[in-house]
Amino acid sequence: MAKELTSRSENYSQWYNDLVLKADLAENSAVRGCMVIKPYGYAIWEKMQAELDRMFKETGHVNAYFPLFIPKSFLSKEAAHVEGFAKECAVVTHYRLKNSPDGKGVIVDPEAKLEEELIVRPTSETIIWSTYKNWIQSYRDLPLLINQWANVVRWEMRTRLFLRTAEFLWQEGHTAHATEAEAMVEARQMLDIYAEFAENFMAMPVLKGVKSANERFAGALETFCIEALMQDGKALQAGTSHFLGQNFAKAFDVTFVDKNNKVDHVWATSWGVSTRLMGALIMSHSDDNGLVLPPKLAPFQVVIVPIYKNEEQLTAISEKVNEIIPKLRKLGISVKYDNNDNKKPGWKFAEYELKGVPVRLAMGARDLENGTVEVARRDTLTKETIAIDGVEIYIEKLMIDIQENIYKKAFDYRASVTREVNSYDEFKTEIEKGGFLLCHWDGSPETEERVKDETKATIRSIPLEASESGTCIFTGKPSKQRVVFARAY
Amino acid sequence: MAKELTSRSENYSQWYNDLVLKADLAENSAVRGCMVIKPYGYAIWEKMQAELDRMFKETGHVNAYFPLFIPKSFLSKEAAHVEGFAKECAVVTHYRLKNSPDGKGVIVDPEAKLEEELIVRPTSETIIWSTYKNWIQSYRDLPLLINQWANVVRWEMRTRLFLRTAEFLWQEGHTAHATEAEAMVEARQMLDIYAEFAENFMAMPVLKGVKSANERFAGALETFCIEALMQDGKALQAGTSHFLGQNFAKAFDVTFVDKNNKVDHVWATSWGVSTRLMGALIMSHSDDNGLVLPPKLAPFQVVIVPIYKNEEQLTAISEKVNEIIPKLRKLGISVKYDNNDNKKPGWKFAEYELKGVPVRLAMGARDLENGTVEVARRDTLTKETIAIDGVEIYIEKLMIDIQENIYKKAFDYRASVTREVNSYDEFKTEIEKGGFLLCHWDGSPETEERVKDETKATIRSIPLEASESGTCIFTGKPSKQRVVFARAY
Repeated sequence: MAKELTSRSENYSQWYNDLVLKADLAENSAVRGCMVIKPYGYAIWEKMQAELDRMFKETGHVNAYFPLFIPKSFLSKEAAHVEGFAKECAVVTHYRLKNSPDGKGVIVDPEAKLEEELIVRPTSETIIWSTYKNWIQSYRDLPLLINQWANVVRWEMRTRLFLRTAEFLWQEGHTAHATEAEAMVEARQMLDIYAEFAENFMAMPVLKGVKSANERFAGALETFCIEALMQDGKALQAGTSHFLGQNFAKAFDVTFVDKNNKVDHVWATSWGVSTRLMGALIMSHSDDNGLVLPPKLAPFQVVIVPIYKNEEQLTAISEKVNEIIPKLRKLGISVKYDNNDNKKPGWKFAEYELKGVPVRLAMGARDLENGTVEVARRDTLTKETIAIDGVEIYIEKLMIDIQENIYKKAFDYRASVTREVNSYDEFKTEIEKGGFLLCHWDGSPETEERVKDETKATIRSIPLEASESGTCIFTGKPSKQRVVFARAY
Repeated sequence: MAKELTSRSENYSQWYNDLVLKADLAENSAVRGCMVIKPYGYAIWEKMQAELDRMFKETGHVNAYFPLFIPKSFLSKEAAHVEGFAKECAVVTHYRLKNSPDGKGVIVDPEAKLEEELIVRPTSETIIWSTYKNWIQSYRDLPLLINQWANVVRWEMRTRLFLRTAEFLWQEGHTAHATEAEAMVEARQMLDIYAEFAENFMAMPVLKGVKSANERFAGALETFCIEALMQDGKALQAGTSHFLGQNFAKAFDVTFVDKNNKVDHVWATSWGVSTRLMGALIMSHSDDNGLVLPPKLAPFQVVIVPIYKNEEQLTAISEKVNEIIPKLRKLGISVKYDNNDNKKPGWKFAEYELKGVPVRLAMGARDLENGTVEVARRDTLTKETIAIDGVEIYIEKLMIDIQENIYKKAFDYRASVTREVNSYDEFKTEIEKGGFLLCHWDGSPETEERVKDETKATIRSIPLEASESGTCIFTGKPSKQRVVFARAY
């Protein structure tokens, strides 16, 4: 088979790269660090977008669009923010090319230099808060609940398809509130929405928690996160929701008059998920045969492959298939009938396994005679032969089963590699095996930094539901609750 | 009224700017030439996107995503293309900022200079065809029918909200075909789709035609266009579909093996519409009271305003309204019930007129007694009182009437200012009055250039359905058919 993947046990990282390429999800472009998202990969992303967009709108958010470029001076207005992003900014310095004097191609026209350089947005807090200044005067203008679907650029030195790319696609919500409490409720609400999306649509269990100061968003007072665990035991930050306090309101002088006629700075949140979720989806469920997609995000959920020896058989099978297809579609199930004559059934089976299509139906001459069809599940790789009559009802239920089974498998795996660790020696041994380590920590950035230097593990999450208090396994100082350490993507 | 607009007769251009700002569609940002698309404007754009995306997918196209950046050398590979875009390119030259030595903010790090500058895409033919080279080997890989929704940047010196901005949002289709004929069919098909969208959804009549060489896309062999006419008599190019021949395939060496085992270059099309359509929509239908939106693109189609003297009346009205709303929604009609107590009905009436909501229902105590409701149409500004019973059926029909009436009004206006002109003297007089002038032209770029210099009019379209032949009114040379001249946005 031309498209064979490196196995996960042999080389997980290579398996991932092979899969992204061979399943036609994405590829590297001619521009360093920037990817091309191919149609099949983009179709999954569109499904993700549609569900997230619906969830945002159902909670009162509206979409808008802000400029791609940020004046350099804006970025500097919030001290922690510029510190966090300055080292990875793509900078526009000129606005024109001209013919090269040597007659070969074009060069940058030195006379078309911008007075102030423009940064390609790495995130939009600064340009958005400079805009909000004009939109907010009174408590009546609040809350502002705005989301943007956009591309952003962070000049990463080591890139990996979907997981870390110089340009990526994302959504970024930016909300403004009259009170601290309301902003905090919003930040927590969006965390819950992300968790619901991850678990119910991506079938990916996530931990909800808070980031330690070291891992906090540049400019936030508190960063909430959903943290997922990949099959190789490494953690992946899948979404963040930031409580920004009044930092950006102060940086851009955004004030409002409250009900008591008092002037105060506005309270803010921002929150985002990106095409990184594609990487998380792939690494949560897929296997050595290829992608495993949850039915709720699969570009098509069922593929039907005819097995025939001659034109006559194909015609008879197609007739039957054309009865089934509308019944499936009526139940909201997306179907592809692959009657392409250039490829053998075996090739098609492998191809749709690689592409992660949740259910494959195969129908041959004998099936026609017997009134049966072969149903193959992608998640379990099991097959069974069932009656054609009522197959649509069977498949409708199968979609739910598969969605749940994929989730359960990921959940059980995570449970199997999540454990409490009670000494640094134990920690050092266990961290090599991967997974989430729950341990006591004294709460200091210095301790976290030291553990990171010595073991490459970081605090992925301070769980929202606190455990018992205890003693830091690294310093012996008091600890309020266990936190989650892991090595991470 | 705080939001009063400049009237169209007083100053059309100022009216447009006022309207875009006051109806909360868009505003200028802190970045020169870049706009902020506000939530109400973006909601209209989302409706446009949804319909176009559906039409593209129904004709076999899929979405994908290509990099924001284009290596400078790529742009130079197609001679006409670079000539067309070099003068308006935003150029990324560096990838890092650092703290300024004087301690004030950040500066571009001179050590982080890119080896090759990157251009922020003004359009994506070059990056896409460099990618297609790896995707296409055989006729079996063709056709490739790919669309991208993206932002692009063209450094315009004089910008106007929606009509001409440095950054804008658009879709760009890029297709690859095995034969010239097939590529031509595709280019024509997309022209038809754009025309259908403009007429059936935007309620905006368009001329389908071909661009003259002067107005052709940089790199195309033929540019098809839909051309609309604004209320001030100026033309607006609303969408283009390009037959690119083998130009980009040759520039990026994209070849394929055909059925007869012969190697040939691939044939291409590209086609796009942008947020410029928002400007076209506004200028096609709106009036001195504000926006007039076709029901098919209105963010909400019906607004209901209660008119009450006390809480008791409001409660009774709200009860009735809450019976109507689900009936309307069941028919697919979007409704907003504005029971905000801070604003008077008169303020709300003006506000929703400004926002172009197609139908306004007002209900007062007397309506409740009589079982009636007042129905106001935004397009005609007429009101009538009708029975509440069955109002949803009435409104469903009204949606169709309004959609058709808006189209008819625009169509009749265009007809009234489209006329044949048979001498250059007549042309010079008539062009001052605006509208489409149909006249004979000798087919030469030089003549078109001279007419443009002398009258500011350009050839907007060479109609697909040719008129009689004749004599060029500018030079007396032979003319194959009448073409459409106008001044344009």
